[in-house]
Amino acid sequence: MSGNQDIQKSFVEAVKFDEKGLVPAIVQDQETGKVLMMAWMNRESLQMTLEKKRACYWSRSRKELWLKGESSGNMQEVHDILIDCDGDTLLLKVSQTGGACHVGYHSCFFRKATENLSMEICDTLMFNPEEVYGKKS
Amino acid sequence: MSGNQDIQKSFVEAVKFDEKGLVPAIVQDQETGKVLMMAWMNRESLQMTLEKKRACYWSRSRKELWLKGESSGNMQEVHDILIDCDGDTLLLKVSQTGGACHVGYHSCFFRKATENLSMEICDTLMFNPEEVYGKKS
Repeated sequence: MSGNQDIQKSFVEAVKFDEKGLVPAIVQDQETGKVLMMAWMNRESLQMTLEKKRACYWSRSRKELWLKGESSGNMQEVHDILIDCDGDTLLLKVSQTGGACHVGYHSCFFRKATENLSMEICDTLMFNPEEVYGKKS
Repeated sequence: MSGNQDIQKSFVEAVKFDEKGLVPAIVQDQETGKVLMMAWMNRESLQMTLEKKRACYWSRSRKELWLKGESSGNMQEVHDILIDCDGDTLLLKVSQTGGACHVGYHSCFFRKATENLSMEICDTLMFNPEEVYGKKS
């Protein structure tokens, strides 16, 4: 019942960061409801997101703050941030410029399981990542 | 670019479980697009979900397989399972019976941040958890 009792808290106080100081953030298109990606936030990136209303994450691979779209231009304007019953997952409702996925698709969830348990592409390619991020040599 | 290269793999082979053998699964209503919850799967619960087409998770608190709705009756019929570019997050599209949240709301994301960074309820109460799970003494 923690969800009901916590309603008096501030939003940031209600977030339970994990043992690495991170919380997963699901990102959903505000208008269409399409789920675009999931990324991780630490306290600082959450506070930046709340303040700037542009999605900011913690990059676990680069170990740095990651303002989404800073290199690709594919920003996320944040309309709403929701928190789940246990306080350990966030949901961002955003307007996505271009594609959310670094591979070039609109959503990071561009593959789905088929009946025979292989995979098929189920999304639209939005950009050529080599043009956006530069060719890896 | 791993997403494109992995398309020949089987779905389960493409999943990258974390150091605890788990992968987060976002759960979305198939018809409305509403995000209902996030839960965790191990390999066994994923295989059960693919086989039975009913959502099955790994309960991190109870440390056991958790067939969603087994005690509450609020099952999830699974229509599609998608995997993200990095292979480390899943997206389930489901038909939810009743409410997804153990607190009684339709979605676990029933609280959102307000302009002054407190919280407000933004979802519909579907059931009384004391009636469904029994009163905790």
